[in-house]
Amino acid sequence: MGPRWGVNYTPRVSWFHSWLDLNLDDVRADFDRIAELGVDHVRIFPLWPVLQPSRTLINRHAVEDVGRVVDAAAERGLDVAVDALQGHLSSFDFLPSWTRTWHRRNIFTDPDIVQAQTELIAALGIELAGRPNAIGLTVGNETNQFAAARHPDPDPVTHAGMSDWLDRMVDAARESMPGRTHQHSFDDEVFFNAESAATPAMAGRIGDTTAVHSWVFTGVARHYGAGHPAVTNFADYIVQLGRAWSDPDRPVWLQEIGAPSPIVPAAGAADFLEASIRNTIDTPGLFGVTWWCSHDVDRSLGDFPDLEYSLGLIDSGGVVKPAGARFAELIAEQRADPVAPRQRTVAVEFDDAETRRSLTAPGGPVLDAWVELVRSGVRPALIRSSLSSDAGHLAARGITEVVTAETARS
Amino acid sequence: MGPRWGVNYTPRVSWFHSWLDLNLDDVRADFDRIAELGVDHVRIFPLWPVLQPSRTLINRHAVEDVGRVVDAAAERGLDVAVDALQGHLSSFDFLPSWTRTWHRRNIFTDPDIVQAQTELIAALGIELAGRPNAIGLTVGNETNQFAAARHPDPDPVTHAGMSDWLDRMVDAARESMPGRTHQHSFDDEVFFNAESAATPAMAGRIGDTTAVHSWVFTGVARHYGAGHPAVTNFADYIVQLGRAWSDPDRPVWLQEIGAPSPIVPAAGAADFLEASIRNTIDTPGLFGVTWWCSHDVDRSLGDFPDLEYSLGLIDSGGVVKPAGARFAELIAEQRADPVAPRQRTVAVEFDDAETRRSLTAPGGPVLDAWVELVRSGVRPALIRSSLSSDAGHLAARGITEVVTAETARS
Repeated sequence: MGPRWGVNYTPRVSWFHSWLDLNLDDVRADFDRIAELGVDHVRIFPLWPVLQPSRTLINRHAVEDVGRVVDAAAERGLDVAVDALQGHLSSFDFLPSWTRTWHRRNIFTDPDIVQAQTELIAALGIELAGRPNAIGLTVGNETNQFAAARHPDPDPVTHAGMSDWLDRMVDAARESMPGRTHQHSFDDEVFFNAESAATPAMAGRIGDTTAVHSWVFTGVARHYGAGHPAVTNFADYIVQLGRAWSDPDRPVWLQEIGAPSPIVPAAGAADFLEASIRNTIDTPGLFGVTWWCSHDVDRSLGDFPDLEYSLGLIDSGGVVKPAGARFAELIAEQRADPVAPRQRTVAVEFDDAETRRSLTAPGGPVLDAWVELVRSGVRPALIRSSLSSDAGHLAARGITEVVTAETARS
Repeated sequence: MGPRWGVNYTPRVSWFHSWLDLNLDDVRADFDRIAELGVDHVRIFPLWPVLQPSRTLINRHAVEDVGRVVDAAAERGLDVAVDALQGHLSSFDFLPSWTRTWHRRNIFTDPDIVQAQTELIAALGIELAGRPNAIGLTVGNETNQFAAARHPDPDPVTHAGMSDWLDRMVDAARESMPGRTHQHSFDDEVFFNAESAATPAMAGRIGDTTAVHSWVFTGVARHYGAGHPAVTNFADYIVQLGRAWSDPDRPVWLQEIGAPSPIVPAAGAADFLEASIRNTIDTPGLFGVTWWCSHDVDRSLGDFPDLEYSLGLIDSGGVVKPAGARFAELIAEQRADPVAPRQRTVAVEFDDAETRRSLTAPGGPVLDAWVELVRSGVRPALIRSSLSSDAGHLAARGITEVVTAETARS
């Protein structure tokens, strides 16, 4: 059985603002088109301020709207992964008034806020627990962004604080919605920036999958340039990082990957999609590939970074784009004749000290060496320095050769 | 004809969060109870992020909800004043995601934001223009608070910038909804704090009324103590300040006045209400008295400053409180036998330099002197120093004696 196939659902009409006045006919029309791609699931993003307008008030109608969207997906044979605390989406932060300005409190550590967050997650879990097509909850989209130093208005949090927070959120999901797949998600800064409050260990330990997000418009494009093989191998590199930081039998979910223009020109999006996915599809334990995103953002909606408008597999008029067609072909092919998981025998070792994360970043020696191996025809894994002499770990992953950044390039 | 009588409508169920999932039956039940008080109008507060979730997307359903609430009021014989840009309510700031964090722009001066604000005001104006019971639009509730230095996250703006912004907003209201009463509103810092970007001249010039808000929990309680006559005369003082900063024939609207505990103990709220209103009701050109607020905030809603929970004329169970009953009696009496407007012949002069606003603040010499005159049986007006020798102005207002803070107390 190969990975699951899905899309991050960006509603064609009014983007995520559609939750304010949910039109199920619009949702159904979108899901009809999405289902035609052959995917088995969508990931959806209700908005925190709509779900929980007061710390002590959950908007029942909005929670039920989430259930209604899950039901609309079920009618089309689609499963649904639900993100709970949005949070951050495509450059916009959605934070309730009771966490900001006069009510400013740290969203990771304030006891009242944390309690309220668990209550919202529980409300969603209870709403969805009876729906068999609900895959589970993700705590929120790239929650580490709110603690990042580059955030214009960050809520600082220690490593221990972030870890405790994630554990509490995942526990709330598990208690309210037992037996499903729950996780959290970070952007790739967690792997690359030593100053990130979130750590790779949290990515690889907390929750039921290690969810990774692959975006080439950040470091890869800057360091290697648009045509470099690092670009179409970056999703795999991120998956291998997730794999390296997880127990060997833990699922790794490529929860977001997209083709951002102009790094990926529109005419090259389908090829980028196919190459990026083929490069990682044989990874053992790959839970799923969930493309970002279903629908282009209509140009009439202001203020998005330019690249965010054209990430859809389906355009803002509802027409499937070439990348969408290619995704559908790839899915159909894989359903008919799936690539078998294949253990990677060669692994590039990286220093797994939290303070040395920049070594694995784009432009750093580990990715450089890893890409060089790829160019030479090897599909390498990655391995943490603290595990590179662990015979049991190596055996479990089928790794027979560990190379360092230095030896790999010599 | 006496002043208009009204209440600021704080929905009994879910406070202003009720806009997220408007239940017109709840609104109708609230309006039934409010109408029984004998008021002729309510002031309502839709929320900016609900009305305009993207800079370029107005939530039509939410705009129509405003129209539906206005219609529900009409069914009960109530007129409605609508605040457009909320904004700030009872310690909570409601600001759209496209104005904050990654999209941080000054809400008073950024050209794109200002344009969007005019579009929202126009959308509300167009929605309401055909409804005869819509009184008009207020730009927003105490908009100066977003520029105040004490705000945790202020958007600084110059005097000229604030003035231009208010002119544009009021113009948008007038163009979309001609022939109605449109204004803006500030809190009392505008009169008392020289650092305020908003000025008393803006309060007295821009829009069709001078809207003033009387809150004794700020300076008055601190400087004079709960039992001091300044407390029950503060609303009148604020009205006289509004009068002094306006042309003699311009309406002054006591748009907010409330009885905050513990400055006003619950058992004294009805007396406070009656005394505060009687003290100012004969002011020439008093447009209306709009009590804050209709309904107590349910204690289950978290994070309000304590005093905000108990400001209602009606409790959170829907039962009229003693202050509500007293308001109803006063309104009935005034409808049967209205107090005639009476010009005040004695006026206390104050230095109207913008830099010397603190002279008129609670604890300053002007209010001290003004209250002393009140205690001696005089009901004084206030007069700007730059107009105190203007015979035409004095005659228009019926002022025959100008006293200074020094002479008044000697």
